[in-house]
Amino acid sequence: MNTTEFRKRGKEMIDYVADYIETIEQRSVYPDVQPGYLRSLIPEEVPVEPEMYEDVVKDIERVIMPGVTHWHSPFFYAYFPTASSFPAMLADMLCGAIGCIGFSWAASPACTELETVMLDWLGKMINLPENFLAGTTGCGGGVIQGTASEATLMSLLAARSRIVRWIQADNPDRTESEIFSKLVAYSSDQAHSSVERAGLIGGVTMKKVPTDEKFSVQGEALKKMVERDRRAGLIPFYFCATLGTTASCAFDNIIELGPLCNAAKMWMHIDAAYAGSAFICPEFRPLLNGVEFADSFNFNAHKWLLVNFDCSVMWVKERADIIGAFKMDPLYLKHDHQESGLVTDYRHWQIPLGRRFRSLKLWFVFRLYGLRGLQDHIRKQVLLAKEFEKMVRDDQRFEICAEVILGLVCFRLKGSNELNETLLKRINSTRKIHMVPCQLSGKFVLRFAVCARTTELHHVRESWAHITDLASELLQELPH
Amino acid sequence: MNTTEFRKRGKEMIDYVADYIETIEQRSVYPDVQPGYLRSLIPEEVPVEPEMYEDVVKDIERVIMPGVTHWHSPFFYAYFPTASSFPAMLADMLCGAIGCIGFSWAASPACTELETVMLDWLGKMINLPENFLAGTTGCGGGVIQGTASEATLMSLLAARSRIVRWIQADNPDRTESEIFSKLVAYSSDQAHSSVERAGLIGGVTMKKVPTDEKFSVQGEALKKMVERDRRAGLIPFYFCATLGTTASCAFDNIIELGPLCNAAKMWMHIDAAYAGSAFICPEFRPLLNGVEFADSFNFNAHKWLLVNFDCSVMWVKERADIIGAFKMDPLYLKHDHQESGLVTDYRHWQIPLGRRFRSLKLWFVFRLYGLRGLQDHIRKQVLLAKEFEKMVRDDQRFEICAEVILGLVCFRLKGSNELNETLLKRINSTRKIHMVPCQLSGKFVLRFAVCARTTELHHVRESWAHITDLASELLQELPH
Repeated sequence: MNTTEFRKRGKEMIDYVADYIETIEQRSVYPDVQPGYLRSLIPEEVPVEPEMYEDVVKDIERVIMPGVTHWHSPFFYAYFPTASSFPAMLADMLCGAIGCIGFSWAASPACTELETVMLDWLGKMINLPENFLAGTTGCGGGVIQGTASEATLMSLLAARSRIVRWIQADNPDRTESEIFSKLVAYSSDQAHSSVERAGLIGGVTMKKVPTDEKFSVQGEALKKMVERDRRAGLIPFYFCATLGTTASCAFDNIIELGPLCNAAKMWMHIDAAYAGSAFICPEFRPLLNGVEFADSFNFNAHKWLLVNFDCSVMWVKERADIIGAFKMDPLYLKHDHQESGLVTDYRHWQIPLGRRFRSLKLWFVFRLYGLRGLQDHIRKQVLLAKEFEKMVRDDQRFEICAEVILGLVCFRLKGSNELNETLLKRINSTRKIHMVPCQLSGKFVLRFAVCARTTELHHVRESWAHITDLASELLQELPH
Repeated sequence: MNTTEFRKRGKEMIDYVADYIETIEQRSVYPDVQPGYLRSLIPEEVPVEPEMYEDVVKDIERVIMPGVTHWHSPFFYAYFPTASSFPAMLADMLCGAIGCIGFSWAASPACTELETVMLDWLGKMINLPENFLAGTTGCGGGVIQGTASEATLMSLLAARSRIVRWIQADNPDRTESEIFSKLVAYSSDQAHSSVERAGLIGGVTMKKVPTDEKFSVQGEALKKMVERDRRAGLIPFYFCATLGTTASCAFDNIIELGPLCNAAKMWMHIDAAYAGSAFICPEFRPLLNGVEFADSFNFNAHKWLLVNFDCSVMWVKERADIIGAFKMDPLYLKHDHQESGLVTDYRHWQIPLGRRFRSLKLWFVFRLYGLRGLQDHIRKQVLLAKEFEKMVRDDQRFEICAEVILGLVCFRLKGSNELNETLLKRINSTRKIHMVPCQLSGKFVLRFAVCARTTELHHVRESWAHITDLASELLQELPH
């Protein structure tokens, strides 16, 4: 395909994308296909000769769309949102065209520098303490990771290498593997599965701290566990706090937990994957109070800040800690400015070596929405969740299962888990709206997460009417 | 931005992208900026109100382009290629619009299924043994990772968890951390830095196996180390073979190494990050002989197969091994079909949870180039490297430092390392072409990697003329 054809096909694709978004609510939000549906729809092998472009494009509707879960449908309320906006898509096109791999400053200076400055912008937007910002002289700074899982893992690896360094400074004879075997990391029993996974990858014990009735970790709970483990000769070294848990959007009490971690010389990482974007609104910023005690902080701009996946933003107070986790410098990656101190080589901040020019998405979105536009988006979605909460509360057959703080409503029919499982199954099988469940204190709970940028109040109302219709049907079938 | 404006801006962006690629060789391939150049060009904070689109676009040329290293310039010969093609860019636009997060089958069945089938297509294109393919009943299968670093890490974690399982089956009392402390992994002393890094992350010892005069690991070298380590009570469990090393594109002797690993019950992973794409050509496929002994195999389709970053393809013989590395199943990620055996939940195959619909890029590229078109691309670039090699050999002042097998030529001026360092510095500072060095047997060597899709013979000739001009100047300055 030459540039002339690309101009034509690219513009057609722009129209296809615009049409897709414009008419997305006419599609079933959840696909009606069985596992293995796709294989029989396409050949078993690659074509030897090039095919016609028209034939490829025709297959989007024939092969792909029937099997797509439409995350950007206004009727999609599952998981947490994944962001989508036109400015981010435009920036992503530019990112693809430049197509640089920004593993070092020299590999494309603009790619590295825009990222550092955009993370400073965003840090200021959520009023992060200054020592998390890079500025021109700072020891901290921000980086774009692919996902929150990777940010958590990086923080755990940095903490692990820091504690080994500290211990070996006093006891040079202690081996790394002996120290590893005594390390203990902690997280909320509500923490995302990726936190437990980070422990498995890093080869350290990860213990779950019990939460209170609001699904939040309090200082006392962590303190007890840490003290007990220390008495047992173990080495507590890391705590991953969650702001906005996946199940119910609960917030750990970092104002209590932070000083405790600092005193215990434990690394505190904050995973605010979903909730973090909300901190650009002053009314939600108090939820982040206590971040000043953290060593690292992360949220997914690709969840709720209108920046298409992937763009998980992470800040550290001491960049030396994260770089020190496993810096390597082979000759083929060295460059002149490397030792100047002014230069950031982001490959040391992350698991992969390669990285795309993702900060372009932040730059486009920030400038084309403005802070105000982004705040409007957050506030609107919180409002929609509150409206949904009201509807649930107005129906005596239902109960709200967790405080509604941001865009997530956890609710259920008063009654058995089985009843609620059946309700959810029926909701999802009509394919009009899509939700996923969670478990809270042993209860099977339905999660209604306001996700799509295009979700309006009438969609929420329509969805609630749909849910109550199905609930009424279900309840009528029950023996009285 | 509404859809109407997106249609307009999107089409303008298509033209910008087409113009950029069409005129890329008029730009300096390497930017003339100092560290910190960008910060002063833009405001210190996010705008509160949205800006005009025109102002944002103007800033691409003012702020971004001056700091871009143009990886797709025909004069870019540094590192290894990163792929770029129009079909991949079109597919990426579609990927962005669908914007699904394919962590499980249910999260978007098409995203998972197209990936499995495309990896089968590609596996057949390189004639992988059938037990690496998923098919409809296979135990193996393919997955798209972000980078080769992640593929290596995943294979190491899978191997680590397999050996622990095996050992604990016979000795239930041995703890994981005691076993970890005795594990030894191996790779070539020419292996990419990410392999050593995988060992650091996984908390296991990684030893470097010495290579022969062709920079290739032979069976005997590994065998000796393994035997010595076993006698010392250690547990050899993993070998990462490299096909196409970063420094000189050397190939480990996997026909010897494979059976050795199998007999020793060590996991053999093959990292063919760059070279792997070439195996779609029958004449290069013999370089992959021995893959039948491997447990996992990986290469970067985003390097040499015209699929834009990121798209690192990986196959395993036993998907249970890789899934078993750290499968976790919280309720909010469960779905109906999960236990059907027909379904792949790719989140278990990778470090991150989230994942984009990257197989669309493979699908578009495979169909719009056809196997023949992709083979032509590989062959053309190998041919260009051979042409460059000839020019170097014809100039008595230079020497070739490693066999030219694919698209990389390692060469240097006969003389000191300092002389060659100066030559490279001068080449890069003219910004006409861009290269990076490597170290081979203590020698400072220049790497000429044919990278851009648009590089033609006349670019290579012009580049050689430029190099020899600078070399002549340099040699004339030397005292006789």
